[in-house]
Amino acid sequence: MSFSPLIVQLMDSLQCLPGVGPKSAQRMMLHLLERDRKGAFKLSEALQQAAEKVGHCQRCRTLTESDICEICSDPRRDAGLVCVVETPADVLAIEQAGGFKGHYFVLMGHLSPIDGIGPEDIGIDQLLAQVEGDEVQEVILATNPTVEGEATAHYIAASLRKLGVKVSRIAHGVPLGGELEYIDGGTLMHAFAGRRELVD
Amino acid sequence: MSFSPLIVQLMDSLQCLPGVGPKSAQRMMLHLLERDRKGAFKLSEALQQAAEKVGHCQRCRTLTESDICEICSDPRRDAGLVCVVETPADVLAIEQAGGFKGHYFVLMGHLSPIDGIGPEDIGIDQLLAQVEGDEVQEVILATNPTVEGEATAHYIAASLRKLGVKVSRIAHGVPLGGELEYIDGGTLMHAFAGRRELVD
Ligand SMILES: [Zn+2]
Ligand SMILES: [Zn+2]
Repeated sequence: MSFSPLIVQLMDSLQCLPGVGPKSAQRMMLHLLERDRKGAFKLSEALQQAAEKVGHCQRCRTLTESDICEICSDPRRDAGLVCVVETPADVLAIEQAGGFKGHYFVLMGHLSPIDGIGPEDIGIDQLLAQVEGDEVQEVILATNPTVEGEATAHYIAASLRKLGVKVSRIAHGVPLGGELEYIDGGTLMHAFAGRRELVD
Repeated sequence: MSFSPLIVQLMDSLQCLPGVGPKSAQRMMLHLLERDRKGAFKLSEALQQAAEKVGHCQRCRTLTESDICEICSDPRRDAGLVCVVETPADVLAIEQAGGFKGHYFVLMGHLSPIDGIGPEDIGIDQLLAQVEGDEVQEVILATNPTVEGEATAHYIAASLRKLGVKVSRIAHGVPLGGELEYIDGGTLMHAFAGRRELVD
């Protein structure tokens, strides 16, 4: 014996979610069915709507249900400055930090030859076409400081340089408020390599 | 700026789930929309079906989409022995331990005067009516060994004794403060074997 078929189906489906195993799925099922049916219907509807309607911005590739996302269609933002990131979550992080008022280009991943993910899979042709066609002054590469993120940044930088556009990489180093003794060696080496002269 | 409306709605709805905060909701949203749309549709459908069709067994009150659950309608099980538990998860834990071949009665909670949960809310009238009407020989109280679970067990024991039925409480092995659904099968079986009749 176990739970009834619809309950088993619900617990199985909840395990599609990252970080949700059998025990959490059971806890979620009991919570929804015993205490929050309204939440269950709401989540069902939200999943269906999003999975059906959310696509990618035709310009920056971020996730959105519009053809062109809110940022790309905002006339107050500087289309001459494009920040390249790996995921929509990176866009959100940068927006929440405030200060950047240019456009984005969202790779939706990074180069990973071992997984068969090449330049065309992360939209690099599209990025090059946009830089070539529009008046882009600078492309800021903000891929993650991981092996794949660095490789992706280098590949994009090499491709863009042929177009004569300015290409920069966000600085990596000791985070503000961080204490040197707790920072990993790789980050410290980045911080040293990226040192800048202090001038008055 | 943040995510588009349908994405925000999805992240909000995911936070209906216990243990899911803004960060996990974002991670789940990205996973579903970037890598597992099929999973999103499947989960949407499973939620809708379960929230719409799952009710309570008319006999034992457990969660099921049938009028009478699988256990209650199994002629091989002993209807003369009824185990009272707090939740459907407890039924599953006892079934997985194996060995118990009676029926269950699922309170779907416990007495909690502070939350306004009285005997009628946990189906005690229904339990008494069943014990009175059927040939029940023994009722095993397997509520959790918590303050509320103990209070609930004592209340039920007092009510049942008036009907002259044998009442026992599982005893050995279940650690105080522990919750039944997280106890291993061997310990649970010890608890059943070591049950003692409650006498005043
Ligand atoms: Zn866009
Ligand atoms: Zn039943």
